Amino acid sequence: MANETWVPGIGAGHPHGVHNLPYGAVSFGGPPRLVARIGDLALDLAAACERLAPDLAPLVAEPVLNPLLAAPAETWRRLRASLVDWLSDPVHRPAVEPLLRPLAGGLTHLPFTVGDYVDFYASEHHASAVGRIFRPDTPPLPEAWKHLPIGYHGRSGTVVVSGTPIARPHGQRRVSGGAVEFGPSLRLDIEAEVGFVLGAGTRLGEPIALADAAEHLFGVCLVNDWSARDLQAWEYVPLGPFLGKSFATSVSPWVVPLQAFDSARTAPPPRDVPLVSYLDDAALAPWGLDIALEVELNGTVVSRPPFRAMYWTAAQMLAHMTVNGATIRPGDLFASGTVSGPEPGQAGSLLELSRGGRAPLALPGGVTRSFLEDGDEVVIRGRVPAAPGRDELALGEVAGVVVAQPALQ
Amino acid sequence: MANETWVPGIGAGHPHGVHNLPYGAVSFGGPPRLVARIGDLALDLAAACERLAPDLAPLVAEPVLNPLLAAPAETWRRLRASLVDWLSDPVHRPAVEPLLRPLAGGLTHLPFTVGDYVDFYASEHHASAVGRIFRPDTPPLPEAWKHLPIGYHGRSGTVVVSGTPIARPHGQRRVSGGAVEFGPSLRLDIEAEVGFVLGAGTRLGEPIALADAAEHLFGVCLVNDWSARDLQAWEYVPLGPFLGKSFATSVSPWVVPLQAFDSARTAPPPRDVPLVSYLDDAALAPWGLDIALEVELNGTVVSRPPFRAMYWTAAQMLAHMTVNGATIRPGDLFASGTVSGPEPGQAGSLLELSRGGRAPLALPGGVTRSFLEDGDEVVIRGRVPAAPGRDELALGEVAGVVVAQPALQ
Repeated sequence: MANETWVPGIGAGHPHGVHNLPYGAVSFGGPPRLVARIGDLALDLAAACERLAPDLAPLVAEPVLNPLLAAPAETWRRLRASLVDWLSDPVHRPAVEPLLRPLAGGLTHLPFTVGDYVDFYASEHHASAVGRIFRPDTPPLPEAWKHLPIGYHGRSGTVVVSGTPIARPHGQRRVSGGAVEFGPSLRLDIEAEVGFVLGAGTRLGEPIALADAAEHLFGVCLVNDWSARDLQAWEYVPLGPFLGKSFATSVSPWVVPLQAFDSARTAPPPRDVPLVSYLDDAALAPWGLDIALEVELNGTVVSRPPFRAMYWTAAQMLAHMTVNGATIRPGDLFASGTVSGPEPGQAGSLLELSRGGRAPLALPGGVTRSFLEDGDEVVIRGRVPAAPGRDELALGEVAGVVVAQPALQ
Repeated sequence: MANETWVPGIGAGHPHGVHNLPYGAVSFGGPPRLVARIGDLALDLAAACERLAPDLAPLVAEPVLNPLLAAPAETWRRLRASLVDWLSDPVHRPAVEPLLRPLAGGLTHLPFTVGDYVDFYASEHHASAVGRIFRPDTPPLPEAWKHLPIGYHGRSGTVVVSGTPIARPHGQRRVSGGAVEFGPSLRLDIEAEVGFVLGAGTRLGEPIALADAAEHLFGVCLVNDWSARDLQAWEYVPLGPFLGKSFATSVSPWVVPLQAFDSARTAPPPRDVPLVSYLDDAALAPWGLDIALEVELNGTVVSRPPFRAMYWTAAQMLAHMTVNGATIRPGDLFASGTVSGPEPGQAGSLLELSRGGRAPLALPGGVTRSFLEDGDEVVIRGRVPAAPGRDELALGEVAGVVVAQPALQ
């Protein structure tokens, strides 16, 4: 590994070293600027490109990644290779060091304008557990589940950056006895997910083949797909989740380029049923990703979901999403669905962790939680663990505090 | 009625008279321009505003309505009142007439950048018929159906303007015997719908009350929500339609301002169950709209769906969509769901018209259709019929021809 940089304080093995370099949008009093992060420093992308790669500067001049995302993947890779070079080779230090600024005191913003937001359901452990809770009289996995990655469109307009307060949604629910009630959700939940930011848009009628996925998967972020379980349970037949999800979806402020995950690629779980050709990845390099998530509730880690246990890969989700000819646009986001592992402490939602509310979680000080209360803070973190020949890679975090929605008129 | 204009050839009762004035984006060789339509003429909005209302000109300078949609509804109403004045009062004729141009030879474009696209399911006749076909063993209407307008998010990136060729989607379907097959959809269908374009965006956590709906409902268009029934039937449990819908959604090129429908307001059908407060419209002016649709397949009218028969109104759909605190953005689009009336010739989908394929439609020349074949053209038209004290109002049309999707690699 040559993860070495002249940047002071970033030693070998630093999880935010030169092997990471996620992109974000940060403001320091003025308007947001696109930056690359190394350690706890932000490198101003437009300023760096103006000095060292002027032809790339127009792609990073706005406070969102979309112009860069509109370029071909080759351009993304060239920018990343340049950044690695500038931050590694001491010859560039005089030009680059003045453009580094401590992140402390800066404010992070959503670094891309979201086109469409799609949420999948790619964890077998999660889908089975939810099936058992929501549909106890039927088989836990829907019939199509192992034939295709089930997904749906979410609300892109309510995708917000980590740190945005989450107003508890009002809505309808059915209570015991069959009556319908309206009020603040009583079963507000989280979903710990991994998100994928897309670029290099396509044209209508042109599917993306599995083998071409890397030409469109720009980078990776963390997602908390907040969910109001009581609203969702009442509304979701037959068209799927709507208000139970659309009030807010939080994403981490840092988008880690796909290339940073080269050493994290791992085989997905064995497939139980033969896959239709466009999803058959047996002959390809593995697309599973060894990302370890951590869910913290009010300062206590309550779960450690393993992304490597996901049945469907990002490449399969992308191939599926476009096989019908649907376009993708620069800035489209899709998320994996709740990441849950096979073990009890590996579920990515409170619904699962509290077994539908029947087994509340014990927190320090005698506090218990089945679902979220106002004032609760949830932080989801992710990292690629260090391994032989592999440095730890941090994905940053996605955080949010629940607040009461203002009373309706 | 004072629907009089100095524009030559637009007599009293013309369905595209000065009471209509829909907005569109049209190009004549060069880049698209925003226009208002009267008869078969286009009035260049930026040029007209520069001459007669310079403060409004920046809102119509781009080829999309979004800057205007971002302004408050009061501004929309002022622009419309100005247009009516300019095209009615002969004093403005010398300034305005040179800015009118025949639409013939122009190319229409999608006149707004779509934020989120939501599709509802607001026709009781459609929902019941589909329930009987897709879920024959359960009650035809989902349990929540009369308590809330069921809806879901569609793919905004594949909303296309009328005239865009529709590539037949590929996808998975289950065939008899339970096997899973992949290929071009064998049950390609239409859904004739009415769409609503939103403006005056809101902030997270701020629902839109029923009484405020007119402050956000900018205008009305026609929608064909193309649907691949075989893909949809296999994929939709439990998260709703995905690839069965996301390949394309066509909209008419003309957005008719809400004010043009003042005389079309009509009472929706009686409500069978008591409504939760935020949906209870009993005390409000009626929000039903007397729009008559017409579905034409290869030149033959096959259905005449009545929008006035819809159970849920646009105001209720908007109040529901935001009651959980979800924002709306300028350019968001929602559609009613398939418009079907109670009579046999009033269904807005082939699924219903052919009773799930069991009763193919007879077209001229001995041709029959259960679902769409390559080369088929569908045109959906809409109008508010003339009535005492009311001129006919044309909504234009949404058209599309089905083409084969290029073979996959």
